[in-house]
Amino acid sequence: MTLTEVLEQIRDIDAGVAADTQRRLDRLTKPQGSLGRLEELAVQYCAITGERKPVVPRAMVVTFAADHGVVDEGVSAYPRDVTAQMVLNFLRGGAGVNVLARHGGVEVRVIDIGVAHEFESIVGLINHKLMKGTRNLAREPAMDRSTAERALMIGLELASDAAREGIGLIGTGEMGIGNTTSSAAITALFTGVPVEEVTGTGTGIDEQGRARKISVIERALAHHHPDPHDPLDVLSKIGGLEIAGMAGLILGAAKARVPVVLDGFIAGAAALIANGLQPRSRQYMIASHRSVEKGHRMLLEKLRLKPLFDLDLRLGEGTGACLGMGFVQAAIKVLTEMATFGEAGVSERNA
Amino acid sequence: MTLTEVLEQIRDIDAGVAADTQRRLDRLTKPQGSLGRLEELAVQYCAITGERKPVVPRAMVVTFAADHGVVDEGVSAYPRDVTAQMVLNFLRGGAGVNVLARHGGVEVRVIDIGVAHEFESIVGLINHKLMKGTRNLAREPAMDRSTAERALMIGLELASDAAREGIGLIGTGEMGIGNTTSSAAITALFTGVPVEEVTGTGTGIDEQGRARKISVIERALAHHHPDPHDPLDVLSKIGGLEIAGMAGLILGAAKARVPVVLDGFIAGAAALIANGLQPRSRQYMIASHRSVEKGHRMLLEKLRLKPLFDLDLRLGEGTGACLGMGFVQAAIKVLTEMATFGEAGVSERNA
Repeated sequence: MTLTEVLEQIRDIDAGVAADTQRRLDRLTKPQGSLGRLEELAVQYCAITGERKPVVPRAMVVTFAADHGVVDEGVSAYPRDVTAQMVLNFLRGGAGVNVLARHGGVEVRVIDIGVAHEFESIVGLINHKLMKGTRNLAREPAMDRSTAERALMIGLELASDAAREGIGLIGTGEMGIGNTTSSAAITALFTGVPVEEVTGTGTGIDEQGRARKISVIERALAHHHPDPHDPLDVLSKIGGLEIAGMAGLILGAAKARVPVVLDGFIAGAAALIANGLQPRSRQYMIASHRSVEKGHRMLLEKLRLKPLFDLDLRLGEGTGACLGMGFVQAAIKVLTEMATFGEAGVSERNA
Repeated sequence: MTLTEVLEQIRDIDAGVAADTQRRLDRLTKPQGSLGRLEELAVQYCAITGERKPVVPRAMVVTFAADHGVVDEGVSAYPRDVTAQMVLNFLRGGAGVNVLARHGGVEVRVIDIGVAHEFESIVGLINHKLMKGTRNLAREPAMDRSTAERALMIGLELASDAAREGIGLIGTGEMGIGNTTSSAAITALFTGVPVEEVTGTGTGIDEQGRARKISVIERALAHHHPDPHDPLDVLSKIGGLEIAGMAGLILGAAKARVPVVLDGFIAGAAALIANGLQPRSRQYMIASHRSVEKGHRMLLEKLRLKPLFDLDLRLGEGTGACLGMGFVQAAIKVLTEMATFGEAGVSERNA
């Protein structure tokens, strides 16, 4: 199946099921609307899946790892090797995403889509390496257009496979030293907000480093002229392999009618790409949190997504997505486990 | 033990343990501080309990139910009977708090501290009824001063008992038709903000009802002149039995060095009372969410508490506290289950 065919198969979510779900929520023993965004989540979940009586789904976070040539410009506080080292940490279960996934009953799947390291065969690591890191986007396009499309298709197929296995809730995760640079570039391009305002400190560079990062992004945008109406052009020139993989994952989830919980800033950049390719995909997205990264707010506003919480997170990996999936599970339980006024013999409101 | 003795035994939380905990967090495989408020929660939890290597504690939400004489003034969208009906719903497990407590692995304990209904003996209901609802605070003091103190002591002893049973995390919950009126009065008194600005629509009254509610509160404050420097005076004149019970629960948790997760607006009013009696109790409080009720923001600012999330909740019962306890559990797991840089062989940041 081609990318174009997949994009055509993404449908609007089901407004009839949404209305039925809200009616059910309004009969539960609580003032109407008093569970706020949990009710909205339950409605969105049902409208996406088409289920009126959902069960709590199996949940999975997919963490894509890739390196970035732009690290040569001194845009990150950590050395490039950390990407590969953290992949091993994910596989041993010692990273933040592992802890929060276990807490939420979420499975973690780790994808090497472009780490600049040859792993020996390791149990648990899913090898889809397309390049040993992108090229340095400050000097040349990050990847070929065909590579960007392959990365998208990898994400897309991972989502399709997961849906076939019965996974009903997907979260996005990533690891890639240097990837806030690429994400800020994508955010500036799609939102039209000046680079300075969407560029943060990533894993913790100082102000001098941030100035360098801004300058690198401004030069890259001026040099490559990525076309925001052509998301594959954007990915190939200023993207990252993990960003392309997540964008594909989002589109694949939308095609399979599986809700997709976004993590933070880098996931948001992938969501901009997915939304650019098929705006209906936005209906399948749930924004878990608002990151400390300053571009995240603008990006979420552009996508008209309201995050569920703001815990000053800036780790990535899928950590916020795991916490967000917990709220989705809670929302489904509210819908299906609470008693109605009639069942409980509770009086309804005064006329 | 007298209330005064208990208040004297509430200590500052342990700054040394807090510093040690932050040092441990800084050695974990993540950029320093990148798990934001989860790290703050872990630090606060350890500083409260004195534990450097905590295990995830048994958690309990205590839901106090009581009626309010002021309902005669037409300040609520629901009839008074709903308080007793909802108590039965709690005991059958069909209410919002039951669902979210099960989701979070939290035990629910339901206390009748003043419901205007004679329950037959029911398994699970803990009977500490002091009155069959308060008197109408628009016309006379809600309760005697001695009753307010007894209600506080009931909450206090419930917290002490829970701590002795090994419960290490306590949440506040309540049910009481009319109790946002009492809570708004307490909030206006302690914050100095005009009544109009702290009075919301509760379970869903219209603008006319809200105007009536504001007028009732203004008259009650003018008539009774409760003294904010004497929280028992405040409770007796404009309080509620469940609010007094929750204030006692908070103080009892603080005395036992157990973190207490606050639910929404009514819990916040109880926190103002607890803070008035012993300002150190504030160090033991964790604000789960910011409620839709408009006075909640001012109240949290007064207490210098920053809520963990804002999901537009306005149900009460302890629902938000249960979700907040999930974040506390997650924070403890981050602290104790994540690998350090050394253990994982991950490079630390560039010099």
